[in-house]
Amino acid sequence: MPRPELLEFFDSPTDAPFVVEHVHEEFTSLCPKTGHPDFGRITIRYEPAAVCVELKSLKLYFHSFRNEGIFYEAVTNRIRDDLAQGLSPRWLQVVTDWHGRGGFRSRIIATTGSVPKSWERP
Amino acid sequence: MPRPELLEFFDSPTDAPFVVEHVHEEFTSLCPKTGHPDFGRITIRYEPAAVCVELKSLKLYFHSFRNEGIFYEAVTNRIRDDLAQGLSPRWLQVVTDWHGRGGFRSRIIATTGSVPKSWERP
Amino acid sequence: MPRPELLEFFDSPTDAPFVVEHVHEEFTSLCPKTGHPDFGRITIRYEPAAVCVELKSLKLYFHSFRNEGIFYEAVTNRIRDDLAQGLSPRWLQVVTDWHGRGGFRSRIIATTGSVPKSWERP
Amino acid sequence: MPRPELLEFFDSPTDAPFVVEHVHEEFTSLCPKTGHPDFGRITIRYEPAAVCVELKSLKLYFHSFRNEGIFYEAVTNRIRDDLAQGLSPRWLQVVTDWHGRGGFRSRIIATTGSVPKSWERP
Amino acid sequence: MPRPELLEFFDSPTDAPFVVEHVHEEFTSLCPKTGHPDFGRITIRYEPAAVCVELKSLKLYFHSFRNEGIFYEAVTNRIRDDLAQGLSPRWLQVVTDWHGRGGFRSRIIATTGSVPKSWERP
Amino acid sequence: MPRPELLEFFDSPTDAPFVVEHVHEEFTSLCPKTGHPDFGRITIRYEPAAVCVELKSLKLYFHSFRNEGIFYEAVTNRIRDDLAQGLSPRWLQVVTDWHGRGGFRSRIIATTGSVPKSWERP
Amino acid sequence: MPRPELLEFFDSPTDAPFVVEHVHEEFTSLCPKTGHPDFGRITIRYEPAAVCVELKSLKLYFHSFRNEGIFYEAVTNRIRDDLAQGLSPRWLQVVTDWHGRGGFRSRIIATTGSVPKSWERP
Amino acid sequence: MPRPELLEFFDSPTDAPFVVEHVHEEFTSLCPKTGHPDFGRITIRYEPAAVCVELKSLKLYFHSFRNEGIFYEAVTNRIRDDLAQGLSPRWLQVVTDWHGRGGFRSRIIATTGSVPKSWERP
Amino acid sequence: MPRPELLEFFDSPTDAPFVVEHVHEEFTSLCPKTGHPDFGRITIRYEPAAVCVELKSLKLYFHSFRNEGIFYEAVTNRIRDDLAQGLSPRWLQVVTDWHGRGGFRSRIIATTGSVPKSWERP
Amino acid sequence: MPRPELLEFFDSPTDAPFVVEHVHEEFTSLCPKTGHPDFGRITIRYEPAAVCVELKSLKLYFHSFRNEGIFYEAVTNRIRDDLAQGLSPRWLQVVTDWHGRGGFRSRIIATTGSVPKSWERP
Repeated sequence: MPRPELLEFFDSPTDAPFVVEHVHEEFTSLCPKTGHPDFGRITIRYEPAAVCVELKSLKLYFHSFRNEGIFYEAVTNRIRDDLAQGLSPRWLQVVTDWHGRGGFRSRIIATTGSVPKSWERP
Repeated sequence: MPRPELLEFFDSPTDAPFVVEHVHEEFTSLCPKTGHPDFGRITIRYEPAAVCVELKSLKLYFHSFRNEGIFYEAVTNRIRDDLAQGLSPRWLQVVTDWHGRGGFRSRIIATTGSVPKSWERP
Repeated sequence: MPRPELLEFFDSPTDAPFVVEHVHEEFTSLCPKTGHPDFGRITIRYEPAAVCVELKSLKLYFHSFRNEGIFYEAVTNRIRDDLAQGLSPRWLQVVTDWHGRGGFRSRIIATTGSVPKSWERP
Repeated sequence: MPRPELLEFFDSPTDAPFVVEHVHEEFTSLCPKTGHPDFGRITIRYEPAAVCVELKSLKLYFHSFRNEGIFYEAVTNRIRDDLAQGLSPRWLQVVTDWHGRGGFRSRIIATTGSVPKSWERP
Repeated sequence: MPRPELLEFFDSPTDAPFVVEHVHEEFTSLCPKTGHPDFGRITIRYEPAAVCVELKSLKLYFHSFRNEGIFYEAVTNRIRDDLAQGLSPRWLQVVTDWHGRGGFRSRIIATTGSVPKSWERP
Repeated sequence: MPRPELLEFFDSPTDAPFVVEHVHEEFTSLCPKTGHPDFGRITIRYEPAAVCVELKSLKLYFHSFRNEGIFYEAVTNRIRDDLAQGLSPRWLQVVTDWHGRGGFRSRIIATTGSVPKSWERP
Repeated sequence: MPRPELLEFFDSPTDAPFVVEHVHEEFTSLCPKTGHPDFGRITIRYEPAAVCVELKSLKLYFHSFRNEGIFYEAVTNRIRDDLAQGLSPRWLQVVTDWHGRGGFRSRIIATTGSVPKSWERP
Repeated sequence: MPRPELLEFFDSPTDAPFVVEHVHEEFTSLCPKTGHPDFGRITIRYEPAAVCVELKSLKLYFHSFRNEGIFYEAVTNRIRDDLAQGLSPRWLQVVTDWHGRGGFRSRIIATTGSVPKSWERP
Repeated sequence: MPRPELLEFFDSPTDAPFVVEHVHEEFTSLCPKTGHPDFGRITIRYEPAAVCVELKSLKLYFHSFRNEGIFYEAVTNRIRDDLAQGLSPRWLQVVTDWHGRGGFRSRIIATTGSVPKSWERP
Repeated sequence: MPRPELLEFFDSPTDAPFVVEHVHEEFTSLCPKTGHPDFGRITIRYEPAAVCVELKSLKLYFHSFRNEGIFYEAVTNRIRDDLAQGLSPRWLQVVTDWHGRGGFRSRIIATTGSVPKSWERP
């Protein structure tokens, strides 16, 4: 079961705007229809307002989906909502990239706020 | 014969805007002139209004082109029209990439609606 | 000798705007100075107004440059002009990429019309 | 239904030993269990004894598997047997590489004869 | 808990020697020390004596390691032993490739029998 | 301990605007929590106002982080501040890309000023 | 010693706007501090007003830097100035990419004029 | 028409055994059936006995196939024979790699002599 | 100072021969001449006799070179000797790959014992 | 003028056999026919008998070819001879890879001694 209470946050080291990107290559959950495992990459990008998410706690939060039956679209929106609640960020983007199934691969993108100036031309 | 009636849809898990991309690497149809098989990749991207397309039904819909004689340009516009009718999306883009023939490769792009904000910088 | 009369056109399958890209990896002509063969890739992109160019006729048209002595810049502008005359497109872009010569590689880009909306984020 | 009678052969242009490799990226057949399409790459390598296989006839022979329900292992051995009968080669190797299914990809290799000297260090 | 009883086998389609390779990109188990998930690729290669392993049953067998705490070296040898028992193959090789941990990546190789002639120059 | 006093600057060779990018692939510091080494790539991009940073002095400045315990976010903002003080640039962007840890990789971006016109389409 | 007098120019084959890009992978000069050779790639992009630069003369001009001691930033601005004088272009961009030195690689960009419309989406 | 009389040779600079490899990426001839151009890469490898082939003359020799209708297998054996006659090499290998046609790509290998010791582990 | 006493070993899970490979991408030591950091990748491969090296202890052992001035050749032979003493392996190979310095990159290989049969065709 | 007297050697750190490989990406000399610069990569591999070549001296030795007119084949054999004289190695291999010229790229390999056991499976 996704456990957002695992997420920890720390004070941003500066008031100046900056952008953080974390890419997790080893996300796995279960397909709610077949029970088979799904595998994907989760990318989160955000401009902190006052706090940043602690990396190890983010990993444990992602691990809590391991035996959860949940659709691609729901995973993506769930992560956006859980992180948005803890971060209250100026901008947050969650991108999920799912491995091939039957000749398909999929990507879901959920966002809050506007792309910050610091994210231009990275 | 393309069978849009195979397409199934489910309610979007959120009212917040987000974007979905499905890439199918194994599309095949027939050249209407020579009868030889054509092979390509189909990419669909959309911002759902109220419903999403179910992935397995999308696969079966694509399989229904397998023995159909149809030009690149017609395939692309046909898929856009069939999906637009079922999804009534805020935005929909269909990109088809066709394998090399005689030293050529081709790409066709058909769109409805405007690129959504969530699709910036993916 | 370039033979634009080889180009054939067919009616666009839809009135809705869409974009076509054809990439030809096997273009060859001769250097007018040395007589040595030049090799390159020709990319054409266009938004049809009423007609599309037939792929096989495009190949034969490109083959007609095989023993022609002509500069990179002239090839590019010649193709743009020949295609623009037959297509009367909303937008047309011709990009030529030339293999390395003496540690150099070159690209020439010639355009008519404005980048269409359908070509955003392909 | 696989149609080996489509295969055509021509006399080898030399008595000196040499090796031929043809790679076909667009093989498709059907899974005999599910009826879903399988996609793969077929590589054939051989040292001709007296005849070579004609390339276009090889393509048509491969196309004849398009709507055939047949397992990976059977496709590979069937192609080896059909080609070995027509070529009577000094050496023949058939390698099939199958696209991902459920996180798996597969390769089957069937051979007759010994790797020829001409195939060292290709 | 690894469940070798899930493995199913079918008769080889030919008496002629050939080689099979299956690559599974989505293996996951748990580290027995930390409980954190491990991720890896499992490659099996074998020359069948009389039977082949059925692909879907192989996938389910691999899934049975999902919540098992087990070391890299033990996973590799366990899979070799389970498959060798069911296949009685002429040759069997199991290669496991494990994702990076702390700047390390690892590969374990366990084998029974000798590399068959059909596996030369694949 | 980071030693910004190591940084040296030289007069820009022109008054015309231009952009400089330096990419350092071999940055290493220590994790302040575990004491384990972190490794990353540091990219700095700037439009000089009057002075440029001397490359060898930049290398020595980066080396001064070698045995410093400091978080990703703090490294990035520290470098931006140290360089901004010495360069007084029209634009400065610092991008740090950190190697994988536990299936994660991270990027932090800190900026001062606006993307200059010379940086379009690089 | 850089010899801009080697540069030759020819009349543009058309009045219609187009863009030219030449990439030279084999630029070498000397470090004015150490005397050691520097190696890099020079990319020039321009929209001709009335004339184009002749490719072979450009090569000889670049060769004239071979035994010259000159900094990265100075090379880039020197080339921009020499070419701008001969071309009087609507737009000119010079990008230099320098090989790794001590774990660093560098890029300098110097421009005159505005990115032309023909250079959109190349 | 292939013109082996264009080939020039020079004395090997040493009596010690060594190996030479030349790769030509821009070979083109015509299909004798359809008249359409074929494109490929020609690799020659040899251990000189007393003479080496001069590179520019090799290029002109290859150019002499430009408007010749000739099959893949014949090109390969023809080049081996023409070079073997002029070089009398200790070892010679000609590899031709042909671009995709109808989903196929092909490679032909013709050899004289045995792989020399100097070619181990290149 | 290299600290081989950090290395820990555990009993091999099987008596059957198998091979282990660990690749560490983040090795760093110091140049004994200049004091500047060196960076490299260390690959160890071995066939265990009775024990395996514990991965985390191997990492800490590698970290103990961080502030040590030592040449490439000496690092490689030192690691081989330290591991050979603890493992008493049937086969051990240490490969070090060093990042570019002044346009050079280097690899050193030190071995004890003979390549085992299980390492064929990995 | 090539200056082998620049080469310096140091005592091998061990009596146990091992192998060294240095790859230099930035070799440049002049074509003795045209005076135009040639660019290439030089790879040297050797098993030391008693001494190793010092890396910086190797670089300076390579730089001494910068303004020398010399053919590919002669460069390769010259380097082998100069290094063999100083190293008296158990095995030495010199591989030169030359950038494209007129659609060609070339590789020359010169060797003394036999491939050592330590170089198996690198």
